[in-house]
Amino acid sequence: MNPGQGLARLSINQETVRQLSLPELAGKAAELGIGGVGLWRDPVRAYGPAAAARLLRQHGLAVTSLCRGGFFTAREAGARRAALDDNRAALDEAAELGTGLLVLVSGGLPDGERDLAAARERVADALAELAPYARERGVRMAVEPLHPMYASDRCVVSTLGQALDLAERFPADEVGVVVDSYHLWWDERVPRQIARAGEQGRIAILQLADWVTPLPEGVLLGRGQLGDGAIDLRAFRTWTDAAGYRGPAEVEIFNPALWERDGAEVLRETAARYLQHVL
Amino acid sequence: MNPGQGLARLSINQETVRQLSLPELAGKAAELGIGGVGLWRDPVRAYGPAAAARLLRQHGLAVTSLCRGGFFTAREAGARRAALDDNRAALDEAAELGTGLLVLVSGGLPDGERDLAAARERVADALAELAPYARERGVRMAVEPLHPMYASDRCVVSTLGQALDLAERFPADEVGVVVDSYHLWWDERVPRQIARAGEQGRIAILQLADWVTPLPEGVLLGRGQLGDGAIDLRAFRTWTDAAGYRGPAEVEIFNPALWERDGAEVLRETAARYLQHVL
Repeated sequence: MNPGQGLARLSINQETVRQLSLPELAGKAAELGIGGVGLWRDPVRAYGPAAAARLLRQHGLAVTSLCRGGFFTAREAGARRAALDDNRAALDEAAELGTGLLVLVSGGLPDGERDLAAARERVADALAELAPYARERGVRMAVEPLHPMYASDRCVVSTLGQALDLAERFPADEVGVVVDSYHLWWDERVPRQIARAGEQGRIAILQLADWVTPLPEGVLLGRGQLGDGAIDLRAFRTWTDAAGYRGPAEVEIFNPALWERDGAEVLRETAARYLQHVL
Repeated sequence: MNPGQGLARLSINQETVRQLSLPELAGKAAELGIGGVGLWRDPVRAYGPAAAARLLRQHGLAVTSLCRGGFFTAREAGARRAALDDNRAALDEAAELGTGLLVLVSGGLPDGERDLAAARERVADALAELAPYARERGVRMAVEPLHPMYASDRCVVSTLGQALDLAERFPADEVGVVVDSYHLWWDERVPRQIARAGEQGRIAILQLADWVTPLPEGVLLGRGQLGDGAIDLRAFRTWTDAAGYRGPAEVEIFNPALWERDGAEVLRETAARYLQHVL
């Protein structure tokens, strides 16, 4: 994909319009000239990864990411083994689906633990264990830094710098990073870190959502439609462009107000907002 | 106050036990041997700043901070003038109350603005305007970095580094910084930044609360009792000790579950938790 090609670079993460079935999403996205979709494991398994791959190929849509693997921070051996097994299954599904990218949410602090740095080391250990398996399947793993408000319960990797510190222990085609505006917008180091990621060819994907308040209980489902919030979204696109990134711009919004609306209408709105606020 | 002096170094921010009246708080805190209290403008004005100062003196309690001034980020001239006037009133109240410290929450992004750096510059402008007034009254202003989840709606200063960048434009006895575990615990740069703040004598106060999830709607009232969450609170005490800080450890928890309980019981619990998790 090339920057500036209208909507060809836009990808819609499935959760943004979860009210649409996979065939509905594929049909409507293709109709609009959107270039790709990002998918989630549960609906992909329900549809069948091979059937999903066929469906999207028929519509000329790329699968820009599979969400998600990760949750690597358990200390107990049994729980660690289970997490690694689940990630191997996710890598298999990504390969079958025909996407080269598995997004990783690293996991939070186990109950009673207070050492973020030690938990991040366990993420590195898991990446090392999974890297050969991922390489064999042609799937790249992408470490996603999540906003610091998730540091205890979802993801001990809170900044792009920390994600790069982890990813840099591996070849760039094995472990990349996710640049998501929602998680990173507050951090003044991000332009520099995007440049650092770009120099290494490590930007696996650009994801977009806007920041709106008040945040909802649990802070998971409060992402805003592009243009509704505080983030300079175009800056994220231009920073990643300048860093040599030529991949998709995947819109990933979790917002119950969008889910209550007609899915096709939300898709059209998202495409229009992309042209207005990102391109 | 000296570290290690039992509860003499502990201060209780009034909002932690808002169910207690100011005389109740003063009486119960003094009974426990707690060294000080942090107060808020509304209840202080309701009681009268001079009367409050007398009350706390009678109980041998220090007033470790007044919360709060700030909200400096408006662009419109009238709103900026109103904010500065309100901060002058807060400085007057702090002086009358006999505390040397006014805590500043800088303010968020005005509607439709997306430039955090520009908003932080307006915070610097306001500090410059207020500094002479504060100096005349013998009140130090303390810039408080708030967690990045508040960057758009409450405080564009999200890290201790940013707070220091602002404070360093002024003499250390005019503008200091607040080190609050709740806002900073996720940031691996904090030990270094606390050392930097200490070298300049700029740590105005150490505040403590724990991080618990799920966060509530609006994310304002979800702070945890000491020891209930993910933060290594003792690390914050030892880092600030090592940086030469000898002031109070003020516990500031906003949590409706604590407010529903007997206030004296919450005070006893907080003192016990301080001994267990901080001292």
